[in-house]
Amino acid sequence: MLKKTSMMIVGVVGMMSLGLMALGTGSRALADNQKAQEGLTAKATGQMAIRLFPSGTKTVVLCSPSDSEGIALGQALATKLSGALLLVQNAHVLGQATAEALAALSVPEVAPAGTVQPFQLPPGKPMIYVLGNSQQISSAIIAELKAQGYQVQRLAGQGAHLVSEVIAQVAPALPLKPDTAGFLQNWPVYAYGPSHNSAFKIPKSAPQWEKVGVRWNFAEDAAVPLNAPFPDLANLGERGAPVKMTQNLGNAVGVSAVNGIIYAESDDYHLYALNAKTGALLWQTGQLANNLMGNPIVADNMVYVTAGDTGFPFSQVLKYELSQGTSTLVRGLMYSAIYAFNAKTGRMVWRQDFHGNAMPSPVYYNGTVYVATGGGHLWAFNALTGTVKWQAALQGFDSMSSPNVYTNPVTHQTEIVVGTSDQNHVVAVNAANGSILWTQKTALNIFNTGMGDNSPTVDQARNLIIQDSVVNFNKANHTTNLAIYAMNAATGQVLWATDLGRGNAPPAYKAGVSMIHNGVVYVGSPVTSTIYALNEANGKILWTFPIKNAGPAGAGRGNPVYADGVLWVAAGPKVYALNPQTGQELGSYAPGGRFGIVNPVIVGGTMYLDNSYDWVQAIPLKTIDPAVTIRYE
Amino acid sequence: MLKKTSMMIVGVVGMMSLGLMALGTGSRALADNQKAQEGLTAKATGQMAIRLFPSGTKTVVLCSPSDSEGIALGQALATKLSGALLLVQNAHVLGQATAEALAALSVPEVAPAGTVQPFQLPPGKPMIYVLGNSQQISSAIIAELKAQGYQVQRLAGQGAHLVSEVIAQVAPALPLKPDTAGFLQNWPVYAYGPSHNSAFKIPKSAPQWEKVGVRWNFAEDAAVPLNAPFPDLANLGERGAPVKMTQNLGNAVGVSAVNGIIYAESDDYHLYALNAKTGALLWQTGQLANNLMGNPIVADNMVYVTAGDTGFPFSQVLKYELSQGTSTLVRGLMYSAIYAFNAKTGRMVWRQDFHGNAMPSPVYYNGTVYVATGGGHLWAFNALTGTVKWQAALQGFDSMSSPNVYTNPVTHQTEIVVGTSDQNHVVAVNAANGSILWTQKTALNIFNTGMGDNSPTVDQARNLIIQDSVVNFNKANHTTNLAIYAMNAATGQVLWATDLGRGNAPPAYKAGVSMIHNGVVYVGSPVTSTIYALNEANGKILWTFPIKNAGPAGAGRGNPVYADGVLWVAAGPKVYALNPQTGQELGSYAPGGRFGIVNPVIVGGTMYLDNSYDWVQAIPLKTIDPAVTIRYE
Repeated sequence: MLKKTSMMIVGVVGMMSLGLMALGTGSRALADNQKAQEGLTAKATGQMAIRLFPSGTKTVVLCSPSDSEGIALGQALATKLSGALLLVQNAHVLGQATAEALAALSVPEVAPAGTVQPFQLPPGKPMIYVLGNSQQISSAIIAELKAQGYQVQRLAGQGAHLVSEVIAQVAPALPLKPDTAGFLQNWPVYAYGPSHNSAFKIPKSAPQWEKVGVRWNFAEDAAVPLNAPFPDLANLGERGAPVKMTQNLGNAVGVSAVNGIIYAESDDYHLYALNAKTGALLWQTGQLANNLMGNPIVADNMVYVTAGDTGFPFSQVLKYELSQGTSTLVRGLMYSAIYAFNAKTGRMVWRQDFHGNAMPSPVYYNGTVYVATGGGHLWAFNALTGTVKWQAALQGFDSMSSPNVYTNPVTHQTEIVVGTSDQNHVVAVNAANGSILWTQKTALNIFNTGMGDNSPTVDQARNLIIQDSVVNFNKANHTTNLAIYAMNAATGQVLWATDLGRGNAPPAYKAGVSMIHNGVVYVGSPVTSTIYALNEANGKILWTFPIKNAGPAGAGRGNPVYADGVLWVAAGPKVYALNPQTGQELGSYAPGGRFGIVNPVIVGGTMYLDNSYDWVQAIPLKTIDPAVTIRYE
Repeated sequence: MLKKTSMMIVGVVGMMSLGLMALGTGSRALADNQKAQEGLTAKATGQMAIRLFPSGTKTVVLCSPSDSEGIALGQALATKLSGALLLVQNAHVLGQATAEALAALSVPEVAPAGTVQPFQLPPGKPMIYVLGNSQQISSAIIAELKAQGYQVQRLAGQGAHLVSEVIAQVAPALPLKPDTAGFLQNWPVYAYGPSHNSAFKIPKSAPQWEKVGVRWNFAEDAAVPLNAPFPDLANLGERGAPVKMTQNLGNAVGVSAVNGIIYAESDDYHLYALNAKTGALLWQTGQLANNLMGNPIVADNMVYVTAGDTGFPFSQVLKYELSQGTSTLVRGLMYSAIYAFNAKTGRMVWRQDFHGNAMPSPVYYNGTVYVATGGGHLWAFNALTGTVKWQAALQGFDSMSSPNVYTNPVTHQTEIVVGTSDQNHVVAVNAANGSILWTQKTALNIFNTGMGDNSPTVDQARNLIIQDSVVNFNKANHTTNLAIYAMNAATGQVLWATDLGRGNAPPAYKAGVSMIHNGVVYVGSPVTSTIYALNEANGKILWTFPIKNAGPAGAGRGNPVYADGVLWVAAGPKVYALNPQTGQELGSYAPGGRFGIVNPVIVGGTMYLDNSYDWVQAIPLKTIDPAVTIRYE
């Protein structure tokens, strides 16, 4: 198209660089085009570079100007990595313009030293990927860049190998059937199932990686370095900073694992789909309407997520005060919605918006998706089309209580069970038509968001519902108790209640999600930062395990998980392996970052997690408990 | 690098497409590479395409596979337009894979028909840009695409011209000196100056475009079509929907115009810098920590913006209720910060975070930047370095009150003046050291956020501060008054107060920003949806102008602007030209969208605006008032 002439400008930046490469090659023809001419000076070039990446970038791809296919591949890679593509002057000379562009693309230090800021790349020089062999870009250039303090990695020299390397980075293949041996087809309820035990055995024929476990870290869009202090610790303090991260930056609750894909919802406004084996990004959505705080619900090749936030407008603050706490609140500041995506491609299929937040996870049951909202309603949608089936008024707003499902073995009636705040109660709704089946307020003196914060647990076999809530708040010293109780799932009748102890009132998510396994209820309390095992029949405490380094925000919100004869817990900065019979610690591991309401998800030899630092992680179980024996189906 | 062989896959998508083009060209060599092979089937190709743009795209760039430079340019263009690059099979055949990719890239209809969703591309087929001449991509292909319902535009055929067209799209040049004749060097205060009259005469020597005015529309990242109904109208209603857009989607207040650049802050989390002449994007920031609701403050080649939101956590709701409205609130749900950027390049220079929101605009004065926060403090920073100079407690939280500046002509002491809520008052702080100079609570029965919502206006020449606030709320029928009052700027003493009438309490920003010109105070009231002119000396109402189609959210929040003997107002869905002496309507225009707290910014013959729909707009004044005569300096 353009005749190749001598290139005055060889090192130019980013997506722009390609325009400018072309500009360089066509510079004679452009001489009389004033507008283009303005862009041709080295100064203007630098400005354009900076304008495209005004705050710097983490990644630069370096290509030879004579290598068209390499540039094409480089573009793909640079775009995927949100980086810039630069051209060397020739195989042996980096070139001044490129050197200047590299300097301009370094991420500036913009905050007081030692602080970490949310939604802000860490300061430093970009990582450089060199595309092509040493005839295209010499080793001397790489050595020169390394001497200047850049990290440099050459991506292969051989054509086909280079292509496959880039493809693997840019568009990794969906998991192959043999790599999904231990994974489920669907993820219908928060923490997978009614009992919240998100652990899955793999068959003996499963591939080796599923048996020994894999290790990878995936940085989501707002990722904070895993060893960094909490962002804005100076203003928010040790009590507030982790809460802000959990609610407004990273992942609030755990991941979902379906068909070899790890789905993670982030408060950075994106849903991510990763290859469970490699951690490679398969797709991510565009910016959704609000924070995402559930684990994705997956059914029939669709993935359902809800977007919502924890806030109240000032009108609700006033209304509540003027009514002396008696008026019905609507929780949710920004837009909120449920989205349905194709589980393999991420293509959006339908969406519905709500009045009030939609923070908790939906429930999928029998072709219907149920969503409880901060506007105080339970909605039922046709899972395939998004058509509204009905909505039911819950007589309270839902904060973070993900609904659960129970089917009465006598009447075969299925109910959707959910906790609400203001009024605080647990309510069961007929899944078929939205009629209220029962409401249980308990005799407890519930404080704050109480029951509406927490997701009830269902034991289908024993016809039980377990829920816990903060009670008996003392506003003088800001202490509270956490109470846990069991209800008859068919009637709501309270069967037992147990006091899990008193402590400082937690700043957010004031409860622990419980998990039921083999007649034992396992639950954490952020009030006491302790894990408890209770006899499911009578609520008697069997053992306790105090969590270390919980900090003033408290820890123990995510449900424990039982697998391979071990109880696994993610709490505060660590994951723990406990003896399920005694609570004795078998091992622990600090993978970096901190867990909010996160439950581990275990498939074979791997634990999958995400965290408040906006990372998704895979950790081999043996890293946490070297003595564990992975059991097969 | 790779030998060209026959291409099996010719039409492939996006950044991926280039990988795949290369893949195609190197397909023989890849045959024994299992991982790459998986990606080679047409099915896998389609999956990758969809995974890169899982929700479709607005734009596709079409290139010839044999045109390397065109592909490079196309990549730059596609990336800038957040679109995909596709390759035709050859000059005369689109190719099946490309056709399928085009279909997959169409934005799906995901919501109930007739509704518009925030942060969601409108459904439909992408716009196609064809790069290259008819030898590269034939007119028959374009005709075929048009017949299928695609909008198609060929971008030139000539090399240099094509390059300059793409460069103009991708990285337009900064405004040239001759094009900045009427523009200021700095923008130190909300709505430009202490009196809030953001209108600027141009010299007689100014270029023609500045005299006759320009017209353009720039769609920001969350832009909703300008003729669409409010997003989520079904849930939010006519009263709530425009408020949500103003606070959580688009531009809350007006733009800043400096050195030929229009700066706009958006609730979509980005700051934009546009060429004032063309509307071309010069740069935009990455995702910042929160909504941006001020107009950017520009001084000494730096631009200062604050990120914050309107929300309260539940803990604040409870605290306020338990204290029966007496406790001190902290406003702000998510992270909040002030950012300093290089005004020409967008490169971040420094950042500081706050406890509580930072919604209002900062003030720049004499090398210092001042920020008032929802945490109830006024902060002073070294403008160049971001170093904290001091912070002062305001005895109330700031909602959306952008501080203003006044210098006492006798003492030469400069004060920063700001309104706060709970407690409601206006406070003057010594700009030099943060000491409180005076606090004025007035005798008014202020309701709700009252004074802390609104930005006080300063008449330096007459030593006056004007502020208005909602008062005398009746909770039975939800009505209120708007009162406006004048204070001695040196002492805070109230000189007069005028009742601007009673009406329904506005849902948000419960006041109008006033503007002072030539002894007259101009102000709107969202309580009565009326514009008022008052005698500045005694507060007597001179005339009133009722705003049409204000809707139940009310209108008139943005300050009027005086220029060319005309009073200009942006209110509800329209801009108006009024006779400043009588309030008589001289003309009006509905540019699409709706204005929140937006003031017009007038430079020569052009009015610059942004709106709740997330658009920045330039409108020739003559479009609004055909009889206007542009006056020169």
